[in-house]
Amino acid sequence: MRIAVEFVDIIEFLGTFAFAISGIRLASAKKFDLFGAFVIGFVTAIGGGTLRDLFIDVTPFWMENPIYLWATLMALLFVSIFHHQLIRLNNTFFLFDSIGLGLFVVAGVEKTLSLGYAPWVAVIMGTITGSVGGILRDVLINEIPLFFRKEIYALACVIGGIVFTLLQAAETNRIVTELTTAATVILIRTLAVRFQWHLPLLKGDTDRH
Amino acid sequence: MRIAVEFVDIIEFLGTFAFAISGIRLASAKKFDLFGAFVIGFVTAIGGGTLRDLFIDVTPFWMENPIYLWATLMALLFVSIFHHQLIRLNNTFFLFDSIGLGLFVVAGVEKTLSLGYAPWVAVIMGTITGSVGGILRDVLINEIPLFFRKEIYALACVIGGIVFTLLQAAETNRIVTELTTAATVILIRTLAVRFQWHLPLLKGDTDRH
Amino acid sequence: MRIAVEFVDIIEFLGTFAFAISGIRLASAKKFDLFGAFVIGFVTAIGGGTLRDLFIDVTPFWMENPIYLWATLMALLFVSIFHHQLIRLNNTFFLFDSIGLGLFVVAGVEKTLSLGYAPWVAVIMGTITGSVGGILRDVLINEIPLFFRKEIYALACVIGGIVFTLLQAAETNRIVTELTTAATVILIRTLAVRFQWHLPLLKGDTDRH
Repeated sequence: MRIAVEFVDIIEFLGTFAFAISGIRLASAKKFDLFGAFVIGFVTAIGGGTLRDLFIDVTPFWMENPIYLWATLMALLFVSIFHHQLIRLNNTFFLFDSIGLGLFVVAGVEKTLSLGYAPWVAVIMGTITGSVGGILRDVLINEIPLFFRKEIYALACVIGGIVFTLLQAAETNRIVTELTTAATVILIRTLAVRFQWHLPLLKGDTDRH
Repeated sequence: MRIAVEFVDIIEFLGTFAFAISGIRLASAKKFDLFGAFVIGFVTAIGGGTLRDLFIDVTPFWMENPIYLWATLMALLFVSIFHHQLIRLNNTFFLFDSIGLGLFVVAGVEKTLSLGYAPWVAVIMGTITGSVGGILRDVLINEIPLFFRKEIYALACVIGGIVFTLLQAAETNRIVTELTTAATVILIRTLAVRFQWHLPLLKGDTDRH
Repeated sequence: MRIAVEFVDIIEFLGTFAFAISGIRLASAKKFDLFGAFVIGFVTAIGGGTLRDLFIDVTPFWMENPIYLWATLMALLFVSIFHHQLIRLNNTFFLFDSIGLGLFVVAGVEKTLSLGYAPWVAVIMGTITGSVGGILRDVLINEIPLFFRKEIYALACVIGGIVFTLLQAAETNRIVTELTTAATVILIRTLAVRFQWHLPLLKGDTDRH
């Protein structure tokens, strides 16, 4: 158990690092200064969990452990030093990012259920944990959030959250539940990107209401 | 009393439905996918009440009842199926939207006062309940919020909130207070749109501070 | 002590007034109506402290005292009446704005420490108090936040926050700690603007991740 927790800590650090890198790279493309890039990276990494914690009324997780600041600082150093090599590492970042997403969903669903909220609330909180950081990043750099038009990103969170609540309802072993959920999110996201799965666009009118 | 509460439930469902439709229609004009459109619709419908609940430190209302998710899902289905007929229904939507606004203001003011906050705080919370969802919607689709330039929308909320607090201070019957407040909001908004009332623009300088 | 508190109240009122004016002037450049300009001014003035209070789980400060509404209303009247003279007053506004920033940082750090949070959390909360209002203002008027590219603005908050926590750890007199912190923030910001100090831009790639 202790080993599993430590393993999760390492993965969480890597997930935070990967999320922060995605924010910092976009910030650098927008000519932000170092501090601005740091803030965008941090918000990308912790934004989702922060909104979740405000909704479930607990202290935002990053206020209790400075590791998320350190992970963001390392991401900033990494982008500054290796900026010529970053494009070649895109597949590695995608892997970290997907693993981070899987872990964030697990963390969000588990924390919400442990506080006694209904399973459907936990599924929403898992999805918020995984996707709101990227939405805030895009709002702050003044772009329409990719989230709303992108490959099955949030749907992977929703399906992962449903898998978690079903497995827990069936009294599955906790580690198995966590790993299966994370694997589901990672698999759906990876397949969606590889095979360019898209949700259908909404057929609507163009009249501004 | 029981009948009145059920009547409010129905109106609240219709208001949520109408607010969600306004979000979903804008999302479809921006080529969002189905999930993105759903999220925009949901945020439009529940965003104001959610910020209010964070401010007054209670659990966000939609986490305690899945009806708001269902109303948004029905709005999504409705827009998908009837997208050719939507423009013809604009007057109907406007009616729902205005009734929803009136009800949202009543709900926001009443909830805030019941927790012991000052009347002027309750007026602000009623206005937030009615208008923040639309502001979030516009920020997420990367437009300047209509709110800041539009027909007396927020002012109708403010006046409605003042009416509510005055009637309650005068110990008016609760149902009368609620209906008068909602009617005030609906009437001001409807008259403002029909007769194109506008608040004056601010005369200022164009120098960026 | 009582005199010191009243002095702080006056400075806080001036800081709120100056922050509100910066929001209202930008809103007027965007052709917002009077109510929209008022809201932008209010959000600019209270946005940072509000997010801080949500994070540290206390009632947002402006819900407990209507003075911030009055300061914003006076700022609106001021801009309406003196709009031809505003550019000539830029140096005065800059002074108020900087003093307000220094005071907001002090208020944010002090409130957070008094609730028992770690010093590094208090530094972040001081920075949030000073800078999030301007970020929200820029998001609402649909511009990329100046914050992310501007002169040492947030870094001044961070350094001020560190100064406060160090002085408090050294058991310095409270008034001295407050004044030194505020002076640090004001001095860094003023020097940064006068000598056009900038943080280096982040060297990165332009590939959208």
